[in-house]
Amino acid sequence: MLRGARRKFFLAGPARRHRGRRFSRIRISVLEIPQDRQRRRATCERQNISLVNGKTFRWSGEYSWDLNTRETRSIALNVFEHFKPILPESYRQTDFVLLANIAPSLQSHVLDQMERPRFVVADTMDLWIETARSDLDALLGRVDLLILNDSEAREMTKETSLIKAGRRIRKMGPRYVAIKKGEHGALLFGEEGQFFSCGAYPLEDIHDPTGAGDTFAGGMAGYLAGTVKKVNFNDLRKAMIYGSVLASFCVEKFSLERLRSLSMEEIAQRYETFKLMSQFELPE
Amino acid sequence: MLRGARRKFFLAGPARRHRGRRFSRIRISVLEIPQDRQRRRATCERQNISLVNGKTFRWSGEYSWDLNTRETRSIALNVFEHFKPILPESYRQTDFVLLANIAPSLQSHVLDQMERPRFVVADTMDLWIETARSDLDALLGRVDLLILNDSEAREMTKETSLIKAGRRIRKMGPRYVAIKKGEHGALLFGEEGQFFSCGAYPLEDIHDPTGAGDTFAGGMAGYLAGTVKKVNFNDLRKAMIYGSVLASFCVEKFSLERLRSLSMEEIAQRYETFKLMSQFELPE
Repeated sequence: MLRGARRKFFLAGPARRHRGRRFSRIRISVLEIPQDRQRRRATCERQNISLVNGKTFRWSGEYSWDLNTRETRSIALNVFEHFKPILPESYRQTDFVLLANIAPSLQSHVLDQMERPRFVVADTMDLWIETARSDLDALLGRVDLLILNDSEAREMTKETSLIKAGRRIRKMGPRYVAIKKGEHGALLFGEEGQFFSCGAYPLEDIHDPTGAGDTFAGGMAGYLAGTVKKVNFNDLRKAMIYGSVLASFCVEKFSLERLRSLSMEEIAQRYETFKLMSQFELPE
Repeated sequence: MLRGARRKFFLAGPARRHRGRRFSRIRISVLEIPQDRQRRRATCERQNISLVNGKTFRWSGEYSWDLNTRETRSIALNVFEHFKPILPESYRQTDFVLLANIAPSLQSHVLDQMERPRFVVADTMDLWIETARSDLDALLGRVDLLILNDSEAREMTKETSLIKAGRRIRKMGPRYVAIKKGEHGALLFGEEGQFFSCGAYPLEDIHDPTGAGDTFAGGMAGYLAGTVKKVNFNDLRKAMIYGSVLASFCVEKFSLERLRSLSMEEIAQRYETFKLMSQFELPE
């Protein structure tokens, strides 16, 4: 996937590193793959990224005037179409797995190679709901947390109510479901009617919403992987806030610009703002 | 305004009592005006409601598929057109004033009759933004809290960002601005960038969104009037939650049905649910 072209770097789809962050160990990494042929080869080898001849994955779409919804205009899988990721040995014992948004059959294929993951997060999109539903359904039972946006949740369940949609998707397999709502924040559904709702960080300007969903998922998974042993609903509440905080930075500039210069202090500050803006029983 | 026709009662516009509630003193009142002529006259006299010959205020509109937005199809002021409310002496020293949604010139006229109100809340709608903007602007400087919905805030400021819109409306006069977002909750803006965001109570079914906004305003003002001496931002946070709780009951059934049987225990329960669903730093 070619993004941030002005800055002359591109990102390999499923290995995009801005999805993975650690909070306790303080690591925010944005992996940039050099355009120079030799350096690119070296980087990819070091990072276990396959180099395949052909065009990268392309998506184009149109955002609505308020940037809350978007419509896919064109999509081309390109090298993704025949991509079958083989995980290096060192990856197979990872505790926390984030299956980024690729074909559900590939997500399952990645999961098959994992030895005993403790917590599996999966992202998906309208394309797979429409064209690979049975693969997606097969994956859902193996997933702890499914992340999707509001329109996708509605499409998947044919429910207009997001509350009904979230609860119904849980019954399809995932123990937890997170529904993203753009500027309106996100909802989290858990066992026995557990429910959490958070707003979005109050931004006056949004420059580029592309990648906000990926960053949200990365922030959630990164927080969990970095700080939690056994995930419970309360951990997921905080993970939602970290996901929202990171997404709020992502949309402030074009492509990965803002994430590249992001500091842990800035993340901590926005986390505190989230506390202030959502508490209603404060000590006087 | 004729509502709940099946149950044979109607409500006089600006005096609608489901707007005013007290929490500490536990009072939820829904005033129903009898159809029987003589009983109606007696009730109206007791409640200081003017009886005027003519049709009541009518509004018809269409809600979008997700019930989040609506469009006005027709509106007829009828007896409201020449309505000039004269407040009885006993009303003029009220500390908390809720100027329900009528023409801003009438809202100002009501305010003129108040002696020294401590806190003034005003509701408004698209109609007045479009047709009585200068009256509305004149009112804004006299208002402590303005309540309006997301599309109205956007219309009033020509801003797509609700964060920008909320902050800009504050500069037009009101010390605080509350923006309602239907199923997505509400935002509150205060001095020096103060900001609060709350979700909506998670309802699976919405039967009739009409009146939800009025109930929200009534819940906010009722909470403040019943429990607070000098309003600060933290009081308004809680008031937003009470407004949201009451609105969540309003939409569960047609017209005022649900509010008529509402108990303080039910309100307290939903308030607790709001706490549970919005906290993310809970003791383990």
